[in-house]
Amino acid sequence: MNCMGIRYGDEMIIVDAGMGFPEETPFGVDISIPNFEFLEEYRDDITALVLTHGHEDHIGALAYLLRKFNIPVYGSRFTLALAEKRLEEFDMMNEVLLHRVEARDVVDIGSFKVEFIHASHSLVDCFSLAITTPLGTVIHTGDYKIDDTPVIGMPYDLKSLKRYGDAGVLALLADSTNATVPGRTPSEQAVIPAFEEIFEQAEGRIFVSTFSSSLHRLQIVFDVAKMFGRKVCVLGRSMQKNVEIGDDQGLLQIDHGDLVSIGDSRALNDDEIVYLVTGSQGEMRAALWNLATGVYKGLEIDTGDTVILSARIIPGNEKGISRLIGHLYKRGANIIEEKRRLIHVSGHASQEDIKIMVETARPKYLVPIHGEYRMLFRHKEYVKNHVAGYSDENIILIENGEVLEFDEHGARVAEKRELYKTFIDEESSEEIEYDVVRERKKLAYGGAASLVVSIDRSTGEVAGEPQIEFQGVAGVDPSNGFAADARAAMSHAVAAMKREHIADRAFLKEALRIALKRFIQKELRTKPVIVTTIVDV
Amino acid sequence: MNCMGIRYGDEMIIVDAGMGFPEETPFGVDISIPNFEFLEEYRDDITALVLTHGHEDHIGALAYLLRKFNIPVYGSRFTLALAEKRLEEFDMMNEVLLHRVEARDVVDIGSFKVEFIHASHSLVDCFSLAITTPLGTVIHTGDYKIDDTPVIGMPYDLKSLKRYGDAGVLALLADSTNATVPGRTPSEQAVIPAFEEIFEQAEGRIFVSTFSSSLHRLQIVFDVAKMFGRKVCVLGRSMQKNVEIGDDQGLLQIDHGDLVSIGDSRALNDDEIVYLVTGSQGEMRAALWNLATGVYKGLEIDTGDTVILSARIIPGNEKGISRLIGHLYKRGANIIEEKRRLIHVSGHASQEDIKIMVETARPKYLVPIHGEYRMLFRHKEYVKNHVAGYSDENIILIENGEVLEFDEHGARVAEKRELYKTFIDEESSEEIEYDVVRERKKLAYGGAASLVVSIDRSTGEVAGEPQIEFQGVAGVDPSNGFAADARAAMSHAVAAMKREHIADRAFLKEALRIALKRFIQKELRTKPVIVTTIVDV
Repeated sequence: MNCMGIRYGDEMIIVDAGMGFPEETPFGVDISIPNFEFLEEYRDDITALVLTHGHEDHIGALAYLLRKFNIPVYGSRFTLALAEKRLEEFDMMNEVLLHRVEARDVVDIGSFKVEFIHASHSLVDCFSLAITTPLGTVIHTGDYKIDDTPVIGMPYDLKSLKRYGDAGVLALLADSTNATVPGRTPSEQAVIPAFEEIFEQAEGRIFVSTFSSSLHRLQIVFDVAKMFGRKVCVLGRSMQKNVEIGDDQGLLQIDHGDLVSIGDSRALNDDEIVYLVTGSQGEMRAALWNLATGVYKGLEIDTGDTVILSARIIPGNEKGISRLIGHLYKRGANIIEEKRRLIHVSGHASQEDIKIMVETARPKYLVPIHGEYRMLFRHKEYVKNHVAGYSDENIILIENGEVLEFDEHGARVAEKRELYKTFIDEESSEEIEYDVVRERKKLAYGGAASLVVSIDRSTGEVAGEPQIEFQGVAGVDPSNGFAADARAAMSHAVAAMKREHIADRAFLKEALRIALKRFIQKELRTKPVIVTTIVDV
Repeated sequence: MNCMGIRYGDEMIIVDAGMGFPEETPFGVDISIPNFEFLEEYRDDITALVLTHGHEDHIGALAYLLRKFNIPVYGSRFTLALAEKRLEEFDMMNEVLLHRVEARDVVDIGSFKVEFIHASHSLVDCFSLAITTPLGTVIHTGDYKIDDTPVIGMPYDLKSLKRYGDAGVLALLADSTNATVPGRTPSEQAVIPAFEEIFEQAEGRIFVSTFSSSLHRLQIVFDVAKMFGRKVCVLGRSMQKNVEIGDDQGLLQIDHGDLVSIGDSRALNDDEIVYLVTGSQGEMRAALWNLATGVYKGLEIDTGDTVILSARIIPGNEKGISRLIGHLYKRGANIIEEKRRLIHVSGHASQEDIKIMVETARPKYLVPIHGEYRMLFRHKEYVKNHVAGYSDENIILIENGEVLEFDEHGARVAEKRELYKTFIDEESSEEIEYDVVRERKKLAYGGAASLVVSIDRSTGEVAGEPQIEFQGVAGVDPSNGFAADARAAMSHAVAAMKREHIADRAFLKEALRIALKRFIQKELRTKPVIVTTIVDV
């Protein structure tokens, strides 16, 4: 959920507006975004949103941010194409101002001057930002690795970065994702030999699954397919969409004669086709899962097919991926996993990339960002031990919510805000109050019992038998008579109350809630949410 | 959730009764066990439960199984000590018959003869089983690795295994957990050098966290602590309990003068103490988490302390462990992680251990067990390619629920049963119907709305305003008047109904449920569970 404000005087720009995948998914919230409340006090000061690149964790909260703060957005052509997909879903394309920028463009935003520095990453058309303020220049790396030989586009633009380094950089805010990984991150091209070998050996059909936004990887699949005389069939909505965008923007070099539809693919020999498919994380509705379980329309994976899983396992997806692989083995496919062959490389700077970054930018202060505290810490440790001139004095570890202040005297954490997540309801795609999620957690844990008691207005006594509906309550069984016992217990509870307590409806409601709660806890040892309704008759 | 029946004629023994940790934990179910329904038809045939070792996934369902089938249990001394802890929780110790056996014991159970073969594993006092039936001998490896130099006890008893191999083994049912891992699994002793180095270098206090049942590892900590003049303080309930059992049974060699209480530990110099603590998986209520977050009573981790995380990361725990490490770094501790130093080894057979197992037992049939299909498959592939005499003909892949039948003509999958999990309610520790979990999932996803409508018995019309209580429903906000709108809509819905429909209470209830569901879906785009109650007034 990357989102950062950079402020000087009464002007502020925002860098990125990302989303996250919360642990609360069982409670009907599929994504989380920053709670933008923290920006309210700067409402009049915010001048722009600058996007480093188009991954979900950097642009996924765009629509939610722009609904609250309708500010101009700066981003690369490819980043904006991905951003537009999201804005269209919210029917917001007519309301927002998108500025397309290119590498080496310099844009004046109030007193800020922002240069977009071409960065290499697993995605294409990414930027590091050089944000020059009256106090000095802040470099924000975005997500990066120092790739000297990317598949698409230029290497990381160290020359532009060095220009800032030579002139003096106040602070470098740098990606820490892979700060625990020794060495250099391999180039995007590093996977080509393994792909060539696998294509060379495969006699049957080939299925390649990867992240649909990884255009470098897609290009490699198209290139190697051509080399071995195979056509490419693209399956899965996001894969098709991204191939289309990449093709439209001239990022992907595709000979259109090499693309075939699923229908035409079936007419080809097994060694004449590659399927490029979504679902490398074992997602249960993606193309690869459906192909592996025999529910994809008109196509299924079979004995002799080769399946290349060209992606890392995102923590949390281990079980799904393991099940997917089990299904593929049952079908007799040959599975190529990332762990066993060099068919995937990371998009983030490893320790020696970090060294190059720091030595080129030579910032007065280094501020590790983008990663858990563990990674920020290791980023700091690595630079302290491997780059001369850096120590506890000028490497600053900050956490979410901390306000880092620079002035002529130095740098310090000036303030610590409590930051919250905002959850998005999966059904409505709208923000959801945390209290609602908390209620759902309680319902999930113990179910609910809904108690309705009628009170005779004239006598002040209970009228008829209480009614109780149970949902998800453990131990309630039509055969064990528990429901009848509970109804009787509630009748007795009202009968035992004083007249004036019954007359006090708020008191009565709460007293009945507690009575039913205790009864259920005693009898069933479980704790449902109890909802009580009093009806006057 | 390991549990297997081995049957000959009308006799059946059960091997292990394990539990699992289901993905359904948000729904108030913390463990899953096999649904023992599948054993009902053999009720009169079941003669015994034989336990291979004491890990949760092999004994965790013991109490639930024994409540349904009160059969004698066979296990090692240490396994039974762990089993007794569980049975005591259920107050069942007086009702069950536990037979303690030792390695090389041979027990007659009806027509079966069971020999307990000493197996090496991360736990101590583990068995492989040689189960001789009138048709031949079945070897069940249990969890194992071929450890020639375990810390506690003897190496894997290959000699006994070979005796069966020489005489002829019908089937080998063998652990597949690490069938994807090349080479030999390192001995439990392999971590000693790294521990010695770390203790040598540490100047402050040392905290070692590991699985509390890993007695080999605990012994190493005691030994290395002694070598470097440090006392040991044991923190965390399960760690204390297992140290006690290990000490009582003479498995752990502890000089009692080396054990200190937390109070006494504070009087020692930093380089005179080791804390042996629970919580290596980042569990939020365990000792290490509390020490890292400053909520442990009277003790906290501080600058200069060394924390050794001597355990693997169980998939699913990555985030918790990463947060734990972040907290530890913030406190200034030096963290030693498994990835970076040899401070943990697996307890399961790698490929070359598997080779030794198969070549020693020389079974007529190999049946990979214990692992996901992916691992069973790789087990088969490895043996096919690396052990002479094994092919698709005599390596049998079976899945949960399949009944594998052997007779004089060979082996075949005779039947495939649908197997279910049984969930255990976290509050009551009782079995919970799957329907109840399903209801909880629905409640979790969209919350609940409880609608109460009163109908005037004399007029057949709605009496007063309907009442609606919302729990966990997204978009209901006291300020937006939604609740009032919904009440009005329900009044209108009843008013628009025909008299005879209102008179039909079942119809009315369902019609109102659908009406409210549609209203909420239209207005809020969310889908709560709707509970309707009709009150006659």
